Amino acid sequence: MPFVRIDALYADPARLDALGRAVHDALVETIGIPDDDRFQVLVGHDGARSTLRYGDHLGVHRDEGIVFVAITMRSGRQPELKRALYRRIAELARAYAGTEPRNVFVTVTENESVDWSLGDGLAQYAPSAEPVAEG
Amino acid sequence: MPFVRIDALYADPARLDALGRAVHDALVETIGIPDDDRFQVLVGHDGARSTLRYGDHLGVHRDEGIVFVAITMRSGRQPELKRALYRRIAELARAYAGTEPRNVFVTVTENESVDWSLGDGLAQYAPSAEPVAEG
Amino acid sequence: MPFVRIDALYADPARLDALGRAVHDALVETIGIPDDDRFQVLVGHDGARSTLRYGDHLGVHRDEGIVFVAITMRSGRQPELKRALYRRIAELARAYAGTEPRNVFVTVTENESVDWSLGDGLAQYAPSAEPVAEG
Repeated sequence: MPFVRIDALYADPARLDALGRAVHDALVETIGIPDDDRFQVLVGHDGARSTLRYGDHLGVHRDEGIVFVAITMRSGRQPELKRALYRRIAELARAYAGTEPRNVFVTVTENESVDWSLGDGLAQYAPSAEPVAEG
Repeated sequence: MPFVRIDALYADPARLDALGRAVHDALVETIGIPDDDRFQVLVGHDGARSTLRYGDHLGVHRDEGIVFVAITMRSGRQPELKRALYRRIAELARAYAGTEPRNVFVTVTENESVDWSLGDGLAQYAPSAEPVAEG
Repeated sequence: MPFVRIDALYADPARLDALGRAVHDALVETIGIPDDDRFQVLVGHDGARSTLRYGDHLGVHRDEGIVFVAITMRSGRQPELKRALYRRIAELARAYAGTEPRNVFVTVTENESVDWSLGDGLAQYAPSAEPVAEG
């Protein structure tokens, strides 16, 4: 279910792959999603045709190692779970991709069960009520 | 109003166009948006500089024909309308682009009327109250 | 805090930069975000490998100068602030990038304080309550 976009500067395929695994493994470990519940868009920007901009907001120094992680998931995860998720993404991004934790920027956007179709034109998380035959 | 992002692997311009038309026509037919209410970002990924990741979650087998469709629209559409939308996107993606329904992944994110500016710096769906002259 | 995606057709680095500054300066001036609170993904589309689609919805004529601005920010901004933001983005996009106001399309998506990690694996806007030693 989580749908994830990851944007990084000058990232080659190996680094994109490492970042994708970091975010996915963190979601599995902290939020408890199944291992095959992985849906990600991984984009490396060349700094010309497409690029990123970032500042040192909140006293965190960022540089071209910046990684933007945008997660869409269903509502209902408690704040402590989200905090655990952020910690684990930062840890695994460092472990897998050598990304410094100061460069890991994460946003979460929530929606509801009926807002997902995971294939076959169905709303798997919110199936329609079937009419029940009486008699 | 719907703002749509479509991401696909190895998609040439013709396939991107077909996918964009499939999603748009489905929105017109099921949600009832006007035909000129089309705002889409269509991205083909080369699998290197940018790429997609996906698993077989919920027993749906996906492959490199995967298409991610992310729709932002105003809140208020009932669940049955959303289900009809997902069905029609899957049907038209097959009809127009040859995409198998198992490879069509859709998410919806909702916002409110005041969250849209469709040009000219205005919030067309939530115009400001004009002061009314008394007397 | 705002996380911004800007998509434009055939935009060279100078135009992407100008559009990014226009949106950022408008956020600073109208919403009051700090100047270093800038997090943007700027993407120029070549019209082939990736592209945009748009119509003349609401009688606004759009052309290939179209710019999609998608802003994610915390909830709580009042409608009048959002209207001021849209006006200022359109003004500055014209001033900095020569973009006509009719071609500036903006959407806002909101989330909550706990939905942001601005680095170091922390949820800076919603820090965890520390246990307080009694005695």
